[in-house]
Amino acid sequence: MRPLPRGILPPVVTTFRGEVLDCGAFRANLQAFNSTELAGYVVLGSNGEGIYLDDDEALRVADVAAEARSPDKFLIVGTGRESTRATIALTRRAGRAGADAVLVTPPAYYRASMTPAALEFHYQAVADAAEVPVLLYHVPRFCPVTFEPAWVCRLACHPNIAGLKDSSADVVFLTTCLKDRPGGFRVYVGTANLLLAGLVLGADGGILALANVAPQECVELLRLVERGEIECARALQHRLLALNETVTTRHGVPGLKLAMDLVGLHGGEARRPLSPLSPENRQALQAALRQAAIRPLIAAGRPLPGDSDAPR
Amino acid sequence: MRPLPRGILPPVVTTFRGEVLDCGAFRANLQAFNSTELAGYVVLGSNGEGIYLDDDEALRVADVAAEARSPDKFLIVGTGRESTRATIALTRRAGRAGADAVLVTPPAYYRASMTPAALEFHYQAVADAAEVPVLLYHVPRFCPVTFEPAWVCRLACHPNIAGLKDSSADVVFLTTCLKDRPGGFRVYVGTANLLLAGLVLGADGGILALANVAPQECVELLRLVERGEIECARALQHRLLALNETVTTRHGVPGLKLAMDLVGLHGGEARRPLSPLSPENRQALQAALRQAAIRPLIAAGRPLPGDSDAPR
Amino acid sequence: MRPLPRGILPPVVTTFRGEVLDCGAFRANLQAFNSTELAGYVVLGSNGEGIYLDDDEALRVADVAAEARSPDKFLIVGTGRESTRATIALTRRAGRAGADAVLVTPPAYYRASMTPAALEFHYQAVADAAEVPVLLYHVPRFCPVTFEPAWVCRLACHPNIAGLKDSSADVVFLTTCLKDRPGGFRVYVGTANLLLAGLVLGADGGILALANVAPQECVELLRLVERGEIECARALQHRLLALNETVTTRHGVPGLKLAMDLVGLHGGEARRPLSPLSPENRQALQAALRQAAIRPLIAAGRPLPGDSDAPR
Amino acid sequence: MRPLPRGILPPVVTTFRGEVLDCGAFRANLQAFNSTELAGYVVLGSNGEGIYLDDDEALRVADVAAEARSPDKFLIVGTGRESTRATIALTRRAGRAGADAVLVTPPAYYRASMTPAALEFHYQAVADAAEVPVLLYHVPRFCPVTFEPAWVCRLACHPNIAGLKDSSADVVFLTTCLKDRPGGFRVYVGTANLLLAGLVLGADGGILALANVAPQECVELLRLVERGEIECARALQHRLLALNETVTTRHGVPGLKLAMDLVGLHGGEARRPLSPLSPENRQALQAALRQAAIRPLIAAGRPLPGDSDAPR
Repeated sequence: MRPLPRGILPPVVTTFRGEVLDCGAFRANLQAFNSTELAGYVVLGSNGEGIYLDDDEALRVADVAAEARSPDKFLIVGTGRESTRATIALTRRAGRAGADAVLVTPPAYYRASMTPAALEFHYQAVADAAEVPVLLYHVPRFCPVTFEPAWVCRLACHPNIAGLKDSSADVVFLTTCLKDRPGGFRVYVGTANLLLAGLVLGADGGILALANVAPQECVELLRLVERGEIECARALQHRLLALNETVTTRHGVPGLKLAMDLVGLHGGEARRPLSPLSPENRQALQAALRQAAIRPLIAAGRPLPGDSDAPR
Repeated sequence: MRPLPRGILPPVVTTFRGEVLDCGAFRANLQAFNSTELAGYVVLGSNGEGIYLDDDEALRVADVAAEARSPDKFLIVGTGRESTRATIALTRRAGRAGADAVLVTPPAYYRASMTPAALEFHYQAVADAAEVPVLLYHVPRFCPVTFEPAWVCRLACHPNIAGLKDSSADVVFLTTCLKDRPGGFRVYVGTANLLLAGLVLGADGGILALANVAPQECVELLRLVERGEIECARALQHRLLALNETVTTRHGVPGLKLAMDLVGLHGGEARRPLSPLSPENRQALQAALRQAAIRPLIAAGRPLPGDSDAPR
Repeated sequence: MRPLPRGILPPVVTTFRGEVLDCGAFRANLQAFNSTELAGYVVLGSNGEGIYLDDDEALRVADVAAEARSPDKFLIVGTGRESTRATIALTRRAGRAGADAVLVTPPAYYRASMTPAALEFHYQAVADAAEVPVLLYHVPRFCPVTFEPAWVCRLACHPNIAGLKDSSADVVFLTTCLKDRPGGFRVYVGTANLLLAGLVLGADGGILALANVAPQECVELLRLVERGEIECARALQHRLLALNETVTTRHGVPGLKLAMDLVGLHGGEARRPLSPLSPENRQALQAALRQAAIRPLIAAGRPLPGDSDAPR
Repeated sequence: MRPLPRGILPPVVTTFRGEVLDCGAFRANLQAFNSTELAGYVVLGSNGEGIYLDDDEALRVADVAAEARSPDKFLIVGTGRESTRATIALTRRAGRAGADAVLVTPPAYYRASMTPAALEFHYQAVADAAEVPVLLYHVPRFCPVTFEPAWVCRLACHPNIAGLKDSSADVVFLTTCLKDRPGGFRVYVGTANLLLAGLVLGADGGILALANVAPQECVELLRLVERGEIECARALQHRLLALNETVTTRHGVPGLKLAMDLVGLHGGEARRPLSPLSPENRQALQAALRQAAIRPLIAAGRPLPGDSDAPR
């Protein structure tokens, strides 16, 4: 099994034409990322609208990603479902489809019942059954349960639990996990807003929505920290914060997709009930991109008509 | 189309043997309810572990319910999914399977994007496409978005949006909906804790987890209010509150299922990661049932072995 | 000691001219209330800006209330402070000033330290030292700590703890207290929004900001429930809800004071940083008063210039 | 006016004998701090139980601090009150007592009314009236209102508003203030948990409860960041985090006071309803201090009996 890399990975968007999967656009995005210093990509994560796909669509996306990936990029597939049983089933299928690892959101629907013991049980059962390493995914913004460092670090000792993506913005949680984790357990910052803080505190990298739009800048921030150039890193973090707030915090998946369109990649519309930005918000997002002076990254080409799954 | 009834309906549990659907037990529960004054039943609601079923399982449950129902009982099927597209698809299949109406939870995963406009769009699109009446379902405990009376009452004017189940425990929200709703729009209290308060404020009935365990008592409370016997109603509400707190608030779906086993119906285990009660909690629940002096309702019979879907 | 009454009491506002206490206006309001069926009044409660007064001002208000009260009205004085020591000191002074009982908000500044044990200790110490009965005051909107029925009902057995004002809007909490309280312990609903629900569940009355503006309507709702006229009570509750939302929920103390001015009583401005309503909000409030068709209650007369404490 | 310093300042505790001010112990603590590299001290902050003191006691504490201070240490006095009027009065008295600056918590009791406009008005009025520079204090843990970078940065342009203490643990808020503030506006991290992150992001120092117990270590972390020794800084931050969680997050003011006793300074008991630690918690705190290997700082000497204000 490949060890989880240090570095920056984007949780890539899933592209649609109308409401139908558009695999050509999806492939073109990955090919564009293949030319960067990104460490890999995450498909079917929160920004990948995994929650809006049925299992067949999800597997189709994983298959296309496995084909389009560059061999030096690490491929992570999001496979969290509400039931342990469904999570295991999808995890095993993702492993067979070519995922290097899976990223597993916690069950959160019955959140009053999601005690530490229930969550620990769930992750242990998934890791026992998985054929590839499992990453825990702490993301109370979408899955409103709270992780505790104590059980995270217990799970981190499971031979098949290899890392954590922390999107909680809770620096005390993050720092505690970083100081108490066993050797080799990877911790990724889950939002560009905390990239500098997280790296300085010891994180191994970031899985960042913003890395879809500004991959080179996110990688650069990591390099600056590695070289100890803290003042330059701070200036870059300040620059990225405003952009990230506009693109993802304020406008969510539709904002991220529009920003990708604007930098020459393939975003397109999200599935409903997510809705496109209003003209005013669209302009604000364009202004934020200009102000952040992002270097564009051109996608490998417009997808050919026959390359799409639509219509079917 | 049948109008939505006044009265009490239980959101029935989905029964499993191991983790496999147990349709015989499910049928037996409905048959037991057929002998009561319940107005109908809701299948695949929050307490029905709908979130843990794939679409085929969900349809199987709807089919069995449509067979087992008594013609005088109203059958509501839960069909909420995160995407508008998937909600419409399941809603149409449920209508064809024999549902009299559907109960639709709001999308909540991308909750920062679930603006009033997005939620209103979603429900309107579902109602436009549905072949049976739609009930809105306000349940921030499971789907953490908050409804506003203004758009609820706008949607209530849609010819195919027929009612609201309110499980929010927000009496101001409930009262505002009751006073501002158009004529004929049904409002059901969503928790036995607020049954008396809700009925006095004008609600048409309740869709109550507790009605699985104490159907006769829940119906009796409604009758007492209808007859203006407020002091008796108060005493019964006090009695039901403590039971409901123990059964559902404290122990969720596993608590409800255990309580059903204890009153002679079919509960069984929930799917994981929901976990069975500890021995201490089990005893506390038994004590609460004894103290509330619930009159048992015997299920129509143990399911025959061949009646189960397991194994497959 | 007088037993706490059943009935409706307004938490009266403290009146200022500029930022200086205006005792004449305050007295005129109480005199207006003396002509009603209100059971008494609460001074220095949350709506009385007690938190904005120094101890001398607070005692001055209590003294004026003690003079202006009608002998058949029950006088409650708010004496909650953050430290046990200061609460006891003010409570004893209020008792000597003529309070029939005191209403004590919980300490909440160090809320992480305000465990059930700490709150129980505090109330016990205050009750031990008080010369008049103590009412507990559950008001998480202003004092963000949460009461638990278990310790509330333990404290309710203290010979000097006589009642509870519950402004939490948590019907489960309220119902649990009502069903588990010892005999003679008074429970008052703390918001007009829940008056009907609370009374039907067994509450003894209400301490309601709205009773400053619509005292006759609040008393009428109580009488309707006492006579079992639930449908009329419901219609009145629906009418009062919209008004109460506009007056107090939406606009707080300044909204309440403006509404008092508009019905012929003395409101005036609140102390800063509370600020007067915008012209639009002022109009909305006027419209809400008109729509609710409140019967005006004229204050005893404009205060004479020399009757004010200002200037000093 | 002295400019606000870069550096670390402890918000010092207020010492009592029984419940009476113990000025000798208070003076001894300041004298111990005078021998360190701390930039100054904050008296009557949240950890100083300012909320439990009457105005005379508060002024007495400020006077003693002004006498005991070393001329090279910066003296900040907490003067936030709920009303604008009371805040101004105490601020002016603190200035005359010798404060170099004041630290002002936001009014939060009527938090629904504390709109951005109301908070901005309040701080502007206080700053207009103050004779010494004003620091804004963002501390939702105690004062549950949320600051917004936009109005903070507007206020930061007021000639008499000189800085911000941010105890919110919201890194996005902190980073936004740091990147958007005008030149010369000081920003202090308000919790040792975020000291490294905050400094790397550009903060000027910290006002840290932990600096009462581990002043030398807190200063050392600042020096390490100034010298670019990020790995050593990280190791020290990891070490301080666990200690800070035990001392202040978990046990609040009583925990901080006990820790001061244990390192040879004067803590003593807090005023009630704050209560001393249980024996188990006391042991856990001792263990945390040992594990963090804090270098003790001995207070200047036990206060002489006659030096105390008790009894009076």
